[in-house]
Amino acid sequence: MNTAFHALHHADRPLLLPNAWDFASAAALAAAGFAAIGTTSLGVAAANGLPDAAGLARDETVALARRLVRLSCPVTVDIEAGFSADPGEVGDLVAELADLGVAGINLEDGRGDRLAAPATQVALIRAVKSRAPEVFLNARADTYWLGVDASVPATLDRARRYVEAGADGIFVPGLAGEEDIAAVTAAVPVPVNVLHLPALGLDRLADLGVRRVSTGSLLFRAALKATVTTAVAVRDGDPLPAGIPGYAETDALSR
Amino acid sequence: MNTAFHALHHADRPLLLPNAWDFASAAALAAAGFAAIGTTSLGVAAANGLPDAAGLARDETVALARRLVRLSCPVTVDIEAGFSADPGEVGDLVAELADLGVAGINLEDGRGDRLAAPATQVALIRAVKSRAPEVFLNARADTYWLGVDASVPATLDRARRYVEAGADGIFVPGLAGEEDIAAVTAAVPVPVNVLHLPALGLDRLADLGVRRVSTGSLLFRAALKATVTTAVAVRDGDPLPAGIPGYAETDALSR
Repeated sequence: MNTAFHALHHADRPLLLPNAWDFASAAALAAAGFAAIGTTSLGVAAANGLPDAAGLARDETVALARRLVRLSCPVTVDIEAGFSADPGEVGDLVAELADLGVAGINLEDGRGDRLAAPATQVALIRAVKSRAPEVFLNARADTYWLGVDASVPATLDRARRYVEAGADGIFVPGLAGEEDIAAVTAAVPVPVNVLHLPALGLDRLADLGVRRVSTGSLLFRAALKATVTTAVAVRDGDPLPAGIPGYAETDALSR
Repeated sequence: MNTAFHALHHADRPLLLPNAWDFASAAALAAAGFAAIGTTSLGVAAANGLPDAAGLARDETVALARRLVRLSCPVTVDIEAGFSADPGEVGDLVAELADLGVAGINLEDGRGDRLAAPATQVALIRAVKSRAPEVFLNARADTYWLGVDASVPATLDRARRYVEAGADGIFVPGLAGEEDIAAVTAAVPVPVNVLHLPALGLDRLADLGVRRVSTGSLLFRAALKATVTTAVAVRDGDPLPAGIPGYAETDALSR
């Protein structure tokens, strides 16, 4: 059992999980000292020319996981909603990832702009925990993310069922109000994960009981912004952003 | 014949070619209005956890090309040294890319830290032009890039042979001195490509006779820098970079 990754959810400070989308972004983040690396399904899908959360990026997700396990830190993989409605197939996927050495997964309960029936999601969670009990299963409750049933009671109803089914953590992307966050963390008996909230910051989120903070697609979007900004600066003769690493330093990430 | 891409080398201004490494970076650059998109072999290799210029990223390069031809602008693909020493195999590769709709390729004459024998490189160029005459073949002379025979005469000797063999353009990465640039562009009868040189700028490079300016791996390295900088800002509670695009805007690039 990969206890190291589980233990990061019970440290003095919340686990700050930066989300990568390819080997280079993950390797650069690991080299910068982050204790674990996640993936962003938006980044993985878009990097491959696919829409996010559409269930289309299974092969790309596995191929990326195969590369990321070379890193010396734990890796957790965003598998959207499992890339299948069949619990057996989702269990097979996570077993495959576990065999590769992946320490955790994220499993969302959004389906397009709707929420899965809780019983449907519970079946996926049970299948995953049955096949790969050692993998940290971070179960998403997409109530706030989708703006469907965006309330504490509806979120807690899902969270309780998912924990009963074996979820190791609960992730509520879009949860942002201090009272709501405190209410969720007080009632959920496993580590609660939220997206980074600039208005609150890590210390305040820690005070509110959050155990894990993800950057989601933020880093991917920041990278795209820098890509275009730098190209436009070259075009317009403006100064380049400071601190861009050199060719050899960058190539060394993959060697 | 994809004359549109060829014509971009004979416009009033040098063709500024931004180099992408995945679908999202290319789509964002195309959306920003660049007339054509290239790829960076460093970026493609590193994104996939491979060292650059080692001949290992053939499959990843073709898979990326297959995605990039969805863009509405011409695409030119960096194929390192062709991923094979066999001219027939390199010709097959470029024919495959041409069938996909790729408008151009880059072919380097560096082999590790050495230069290929000119006759060896000429055989590759002849094979490519025989199989895919319509593809703009940008032949690299890596004399300055590798610091081997980094002189105008040695560079011109290679360039002349490559043009005789059918090269549509000559790329001399690492060429940076104004006198050397002017000497090369004056003697080479096809468009000359250099890497972006902050100290000179596009206008000065145009005056020196340069017809195409590539960003090489610059944008990829800027994106990696922004990735780590943004993650560290989240960790330290510092302000995030301005202008990061939103989730929906980013996801729309792939839809």
